[in-house]
Amino acid sequence: MRSRRTKSEPPHRFSYDGLDRVIHERARLSILTSLLAHPKGLVFGELLELCGLTDGNLNRHLQVLQSAKLVTVSRETGPGRPQTTCRITSSGRRRFLDYLAVLEQVLDDASGARDADSRPDLPSVSVRG
Amino acid sequence: MRSRRTKSEPPHRFSYDGLDRVIHERARLSILTSLLAHPKGLVFGELLELCGLTDGNLNRHLQVLQSAKLVTVSRETGPGRPQTTCRITSSGRRRFLDYLAVLEQVLDDASGARDADSRPDLPSVSVRG
Repeated sequence: MRSRRTKSEPPHRFSYDGLDRVIHERARLSILTSLLAHPKGLVFGELLELCGLTDGNLNRHLQVLQSAKLVTVSRETGPGRPQTTCRITSSGRRRFLDYLAVLEQVLDDASGARDADSRPDLPSVSVRG
Repeated sequence: MRSRRTKSEPPHRFSYDGLDRVIHERARLSILTSLLAHPKGLVFGELLELCGLTDGNLNRHLQVLQSAKLVTVSRETGPGRPQTTCRITSSGRRRFLDYLAVLEQVLDDASGARDADSRPDLPSVSVRG
């Protein structure tokens, strides 16, 4: 018997089912964080710049997020030329906050794991600041 | 002019380039957190249970992690029947901690965004505990 797992650990302890794949993809995580930080919305060019994505990639990921009802993308006319404005929806905001709570759990688990492991040969990299 | 972006924000502010795609995939994030929490290693069956993955999926993701030199997978013989033991490598540990620091940045950004946005119609979901 060479089991190294702590017996008290429940099954699927580290499965993180709440990490919604639609949100978890890196570019989409980037878009959603940008939009959470700008609840009044961002025009396409601003979002491009903040996320460091190409036009094609941003369009593709916005379509995925729009299909999932996490964001809205609307063509708006005004005094200047029409602009495409992206906004996080209120259910998108809620789902993103739920996702972030699971991400926080990952960090807590990893932080606990790192602190418990006090082998002196390992670098002491700060995870939690 | 309808720019809503704060002018002081640098370009690519939310690009999170450090979210290494090999690590970021949900199942692999699960595997790496399990192995970080168990530096002496886990046998295949334990890892299966902790991550809630199927045999095939766990095998597939372990191969990706092994190719990236983040984990080692070794067949070990002892008094009982041979067991497959998985361990995080020291460079894997370092890279995973670097990844986690970026994840922490995502949470900080999102937390700041949520706190800055005080619209009363929005639910107050706790992200940071």
